[in-house]
Amino acid sequence: MQGTMMHYSLTLSHSLERAGKFFPNAEIVSRRPDHTLHRYSYADLYRRARALAEALQGAGLKRGDRVATLMWNHHAHLEAYFGIPIAGGVLHTLNLRLAPSEIAYIANHAQDRFLIVDDVLLPLYARIKDLVHFERVIVVGWSGRTTASGLEDYEEFLNTASGSFRYPDLDENEAACMCYTSGTTGVPKGVVYTHRSVMLHSFLLTTVDNFGICNADTVLPIVSMFHVNGWGLSYAATLVGSKQVLPGPHLKAESLLDLCEKETVTVAAGVPTVWHSILECLDQNPGSWNLPPMRVLVGGAAPSLALVQRLRRHGWSLEQGWGLTESSPQATTSQIKAHMKNWTEEEKCEIKAQAGIPVPFVERRVMNADGEVPWDGETMGEVQLRGPWVAASYYNLPAENDKWTPDGWFRTSDVGTINDEGYLRIVDRTKDLIKSGGEWISSVDLENALLAHPKIREAAVIAVAHPKWQERPVAVIVANEGARLSAQALRDFLSPKFAKWQLPDAFVFVEELPHTSTGKLLKAELRRRFQDWKWEG
Amino acid sequence: MQGTMMHYSLTLSHSLERAGKFFPNAEIVSRRPDHTLHRYSYADLYRRARALAEALQGAGLKRGDRVATLMWNHHAHLEAYFGIPIAGGVLHTLNLRLAPSEIAYIANHAQDRFLIVDDVLLPLYARIKDLVHFERVIVVGWSGRTTASGLEDYEEFLNTASGSFRYPDLDENEAACMCYTSGTTGVPKGVVYTHRSVMLHSFLLTTVDNFGICNADTVLPIVSMFHVNGWGLSYAATLVGSKQVLPGPHLKAESLLDLCEKETVTVAAGVPTVWHSILECLDQNPGSWNLPPMRVLVGGAAPSLALVQRLRRHGWSLEQGWGLTESSPQATTSQIKAHMKNWTEEEKCEIKAQAGIPVPFVERRVMNADGEVPWDGETMGEVQLRGPWVAASYYNLPAENDKWTPDGWFRTSDVGTINDEGYLRIVDRTKDLIKSGGEWISSVDLENALLAHPKIREAAVIAVAHPKWQERPVAVIVANEGARLSAQALRDFLSPKFAKWQLPDAFVFVEELPHTSTGKLLKAELRRRFQDWKWEG
Repeated sequence: MQGTMMHYSLTLSHSLERAGKFFPNAEIVSRRPDHTLHRYSYADLYRRARALAEALQGAGLKRGDRVATLMWNHHAHLEAYFGIPIAGGVLHTLNLRLAPSEIAYIANHAQDRFLIVDDVLLPLYARIKDLVHFERVIVVGWSGRTTASGLEDYEEFLNTASGSFRYPDLDENEAACMCYTSGTTGVPKGVVYTHRSVMLHSFLLTTVDNFGICNADTVLPIVSMFHVNGWGLSYAATLVGSKQVLPGPHLKAESLLDLCEKETVTVAAGVPTVWHSILECLDQNPGSWNLPPMRVLVGGAAPSLALVQRLRRHGWSLEQGWGLTESSPQATTSQIKAHMKNWTEEEKCEIKAQAGIPVPFVERRVMNADGEVPWDGETMGEVQLRGPWVAASYYNLPAENDKWTPDGWFRTSDVGTINDEGYLRIVDRTKDLIKSGGEWISSVDLENALLAHPKIREAAVIAVAHPKWQERPVAVIVANEGARLSAQALRDFLSPKFAKWQLPDAFVFVEELPHTSTGKLLKAELRRRFQDWKWEG
Repeated sequence: MQGTMMHYSLTLSHSLERAGKFFPNAEIVSRRPDHTLHRYSYADLYRRARALAEALQGAGLKRGDRVATLMWNHHAHLEAYFGIPIAGGVLHTLNLRLAPSEIAYIANHAQDRFLIVDDVLLPLYARIKDLVHFERVIVVGWSGRTTASGLEDYEEFLNTASGSFRYPDLDENEAACMCYTSGTTGVPKGVVYTHRSVMLHSFLLTTVDNFGICNADTVLPIVSMFHVNGWGLSYAATLVGSKQVLPGPHLKAESLLDLCEKETVTVAAGVPTVWHSILECLDQNPGSWNLPPMRVLVGGAAPSLALVQRLRRHGWSLEQGWGLTESSPQATTSQIKAHMKNWTEEEKCEIKAQAGIPVPFVERRVMNADGEVPWDGETMGEVQLRGPWVAASYYNLPAENDKWTPDGWFRTSDVGTINDEGYLRIVDRTKDLIKSGGEWISSVDLENALLAHPKIREAAVIAVAHPKWQERPVAVIVANEGARLSAQALRDFLSPKFAKWQLPDAFVFVEELPHTSTGKLLKAELRRRFQDWKWEG
């Protein structure tokens, strides 16, 4: 028996209509490349995103055509976030931190027809232009320079619209946007989000227990809008009409802290590395900013317990989300359960440092050779996901179908444990676990413990081949400026928390660690550097 | 182009699994008929709802079969809320306040196969049993009496399950539950909710700007679970694992206030009448309860400004939802927008007293003969709705299809205005508007103004036929106990707020007003009583 409810598609046009009509005066503030601020409102976004949609249709955009963006976080990118999907196109955010050849590969694989690009990124575009096949390239002019031949000006492009845009009748399962994973190994893999998945994920981020983005918020996505749709924050903020603050290309701690103070930011989201540098900047410049109370969203990599504790000491509440490009990304949240309300601050920080429990509508299981692992906080297995905003395949890449189990779960390649309350702790990436004498050692546990050391800025622990034990851990350390550290001191520091066989056999001090374009440790590169390591004795 | 996301149905089994696995110890407290409290946890609900599902399947329940409930708000009703739909059945909550003949009509129209009934409601069942055709009648035994012949005991029924229930593979558009409107006129009309509509509506109630039900909450639905699924509160609370407090048959203010205090309720929901009696009880017994800060959800009828102000004076925040059986019910919320934060308390109360702006995913328009009305706060029109949890038809009632416009909007029969901020104010039901000399007078406006009078307990304003003006307003007043009021005093009281022609021509003082089973004013009955009214002079 079917119900008598309307068949009403969940599409992005609904969000744009709602924001434009009910929150026309709520602000969207963008940091321009020249550091000045651009301010406008949802009424402007509403008008211009629809103009972009109409202009794209006028330029020949057909249902399902991909339109690429190569942009920082700002209002024009937000216009593309809505203007492309509501026209029936597919927003494809290119990751400007990748190598030019990789960007070109991704644009070609997705068969992007058009490109919208920041003028400040034209030097990057110049490096890919002979490798790609964009029919039209539209340039957002921040500096006001004349557009070179073969390029079009974004404002002139918008002016081709008459203001009479009409929404096509979209089905919620049609493609709205796509992202390629910034995977540390292998070929880039595309995930195509649907209108439905984007809208449900937006809805999720407006629930109390999962970031609770609301109309009263001022949201600062430090995470790039080309990284899993900026974790969906701009889409969620628009759904409820929150003020948005977009940092443009300026991701230095000082610039971000200025925005937090002057725009009274209530929610800011970024990877742990960003929060480390913000905290460092605050410590070095005490009293320089008068900051509002903020909810700090951390994702992209697990925050260490030390980071959680430092953020709490600054009076900020931390909310952690865990997920992947393939899960839109939010799959679990480290929410504190009602009965933990009176736990000690330390216990709560330990909960906050975990990946957490599955959000509504997402199913999670952790599997090893024996099936689902027990909830004992110790037994490791691969984390697998299912849900309405989890990918069922990659775009045009059947060779990767073994990333899904025969019964339809996505295999995340992350290894984790589940404790007796159901909280997931990510122990490692499958390939980053250290297999020592038949036992597994978690590189993430060692890294987090090292990060609690007051003189350590960053730490990576990797497996290095060993003649006797198969693999043994090596810790690669970046010390704080001017700090001095010894291997023995670090071994003593870790000893109380680990079994002796789990301790790194060597500590190597370096100036900096390699990162992916999204700020994650690039362990594959580190492992490569250490492939010829010679063990002493 | 389709996306690459999983086709993952939104079904109630997901909520039950989530609550059972991640919040097994969160409590569900029910007031028994004998006033004692029954306490158990989501782990129990999880086990017993699945047992009910298995037992129903064992009893021959087929996909789409309707199972009726005739129950108060308590844990067994909650088990039916989940156990019936997850088995593939359709939960049909019968409204126990209707006339027996009407209940029988509704059960027969829905073709209910089974009935689950409270033993304390068996006297009511006895009055319908010869009119209906339930194959099996299962009795929840609160008093422990032996079940009479032809009836089955609920606990024994659950015991027929072996504990090996497996979820059927349900599509999200299959029916999950149904309610009939308690309409004040016309034949009862059934609305069939889908798994999808229930889950999306549950999700809505967990968002910050729309009641924000969260894991830390303790939720007391005073609204009956047979009234539009108790406004969806129990479904939302289960999705996020909130503690639930269910008042059983005891809806007197004292009993409710005891629950609020002893169970530390954070959210309570009821019609304005309930809140009036709770406030009256508090005023008569100052200091008797040590109440926690609460969010008060008001629905079912518009709260007067006076009620909003009184609730605020008690330190409670009021959140109003407006909607209907046909909209699940939440369609609009009187949320305060970010830029109103610094408005005066009085201005905010005025916002809170409106029906509000549409919630995410619901579209609303107000139509008169000229099309959509302007947002001027004055022009009246019929409110029409569209959205994923809005009905597209009634169950088996094609004669009522004119309740939908040719372009697919549901016609609510409510008349409203929209102000320049987009807030809907319900002016009247279409049929309750008073047409006087070519102008419209809102009975609701007059009633709300009268309710601000300290000596008035309840007020209804109705249209009475008039030889000259077509219709003129008559106010029917219930005064507070012992209070004395005169028509002239009330006319003077209203004068500053209304044009002279809008004032009631007569004030009639009565002991009580007629209500529908869900506490709404039964104006049709009042109009009937006044149909032979003779105007003086």
